[in-house]
Amino acid sequence: MTVGPLTGGADFTGTAAEHVVTEVPTFRPEVSVGDARARMLGRHFDCACDIVVVDEDGRLQGLVSIERLLAADGAITVGELADHDPPTVTPGVDQEIAAWQAVQHAESSLAMVGPDGHFHGLIPPRRLLRVLLEEHDEDMARLGGYLQGSATARTAAEEPVRRRFAHRIPWLLLGLLGAMLSVGIVGSFEEQLAANVTLAFFLPGVVYMADAVGTQTEAVVVRGLSVGVSIRRLVRGEAITGLIIGAAMAVAFLPFALLFGDAQVALTASISLFAACSVASVLAMALPWLLNRLGQDPAFARDRWPRSYRTWCPSRCICSPR
Amino acid sequence: MTVGPLTGGADFTGTAAEHVVTEVPTFRPEVSVGDARARMLGRHFDCACDIVVVDEDGRLQGLVSIERLLAADGAITVGELADHDPPTVTPGVDQEIAAWQAVQHAESSLAMVGPDGHFHGLIPPRRLLRVLLEEHDEDMARLGGYLQGSATARTAAEEPVRRRFAHRIPWLLLGLLGAMLSVGIVGSFEEQLAANVTLAFFLPGVVYMADAVGTQTEAVVVRGLSVGVSIRRLVRGEAITGLIIGAAMAVAFLPFALLFGDAQVALTASISLFAACSVASVLAMALPWLLNRLGQDPAFARDRWPRSYRTWCPSRCICSPR
Repeated sequence: MTVGPLTGGADFTGTAAEHVVTEVPTFRPEVSVGDARARMLGRHFDCACDIVVVDEDGRLQGLVSIERLLAADGAITVGELADHDPPTVTPGVDQEIAAWQAVQHAESSLAMVGPDGHFHGLIPPRRLLRVLLEEHDEDMARLGGYLQGSATARTAAEEPVRRRFAHRIPWLLLGLLGAMLSVGIVGSFEEQLAANVTLAFFLPGVVYMADAVGTQTEAVVVRGLSVGVSIRRLVRGEAITGLIIGAAMAVAFLPFALLFGDAQVALTASISLFAACSVASVLAMALPWLLNRLGQDPAFARDRWPRSYRTWCPSRCICSPR
Repeated sequence: MTVGPLTGGADFTGTAAEHVVTEVPTFRPEVSVGDARARMLGRHFDCACDIVVVDEDGRLQGLVSIERLLAADGAITVGELADHDPPTVTPGVDQEIAAWQAVQHAESSLAMVGPDGHFHGLIPPRRLLRVLLEEHDEDMARLGGYLQGSATARTAAEEPVRRRFAHRIPWLLLGLLGAMLSVGIVGSFEEQLAANVTLAFFLPGVVYMADAVGTQTEAVVVRGLSVGVSIRRLVRGEAITGLIIGAAMAVAFLPFALLFGDAQVALTASISLFAACSVASVLAMALPWLLNRLGQDPAFARDRWPRSYRTWCPSRCICSPR
């Protein structure tokens, strides 16, 4: 199977073309195994873990792993030996989706072909490994809310305090703006709060739960986009899940809320919890989706913005007079 | 260099020994390249990307990549050709640290040696790739707060709503307990809140910021432990960073808080922000560290527990009479 240029927003990372090497053993299908092995001697390859079989027009016919080539009878042809349906990628495909393809097929290297089926080169295993590690660090930086300059696992864990601070403060300052907005929103409900201070009891819990639900969605969306799942599909699944989770939380919370307030206050708190949790799922996807539509890098949209939304939302929910 | 059995808590994942293959080309140093190439023909190897050079006692002497073996003059010995300081791991080493080693050295496969230097086998690139992908999904599940049953990126992004719900609800219910506790804590300060309802304005913002700071720490700690950084080192760096971030947030927030309350309320809000942010960093490490000390799996301690702590803490901070 071939993975085409991606849809669904993972184009914010490098492409597979950056990792391709072209000095690889390439043979026509009719070449015998013995011949192929002899012709490989004394030559410098960038990668010899897989042998590439191409037809006279340079179209990929299949791959033979070096292990199969070594084990085979020298008289048969490489065409007979080849896996004729190896996973392939086109040059524009996202590098992580490429690496993911290789893992799914338990392959060491990955063939790159043009849209016309012409063989371009191989992505060797050492590059695939590096891609997966880099993407891992990048995703953690996104979800954690720090700059990607510190995205290398060891760097982030071992860097001096001054640099830790510098890498984290930008998103936190944005978050602080969101927190300030939440102060204004709760403040606009001063009368209601003064009349019934019990409402305030529920504010931290509702904010916390909205954040927890939104973080789950973020993690799934970040990973889903990374491996090429379409945003449309993600949005639908997450929105419905958010609604159901919100309802479940509200039902579980209601009896407890009744211990602290009268029926009206308890119901307000539970409805707020429902609204906050279900809206959090959607808001956690909103900005990455928007920037994705505009062709921008969702890395800049990650985490702190949607989180800020989620802080304002519970404040508004719980303080609105029902 | 050899990486020994790990310290620092990354022992909650599989070990490198699970991924080792033993059917690999192995030669004594004095064997010629031509001889080695001839002897590899017709044999079935699990992995032939690297050729292993061992001495008469079975101790690892070095590795030769298949590309080097093919390109070399047949008359020289494999001992002359070998990289004599390849990255190696011992059987008990964490699988992700092993994969990380390979990437750092731009190697395709990784040699496993016993504590006495005896060669055990190779971890082939296709296994290293799978390990990295699995660990990535696992880390995202931890940080996102859902069960690892849905940890495969595509599964999590594409599974039906019923299963999404089932994978996420356990940690959310634990989180809900934390939220309930926060209600009780804020509730115990009813008098102070009734006397000065302005205090309530700041609750969502402080909870939100504590969560944001704690999530940054969590992301760094999860990744740091994964690649073998010691918890001691992590705690120190994160605790100091948390203090400095808390102070910065409090200073930035104070002028804004003065818009809403008198000097005493504004100072209370800022001190709460400082306390919540700096404590959040420490609490985000507390339970994983504790369970790590007890030899338990930190995967179960991740995210929702420390987050619950972080919810209670801001509630207590902001409502305490100064």
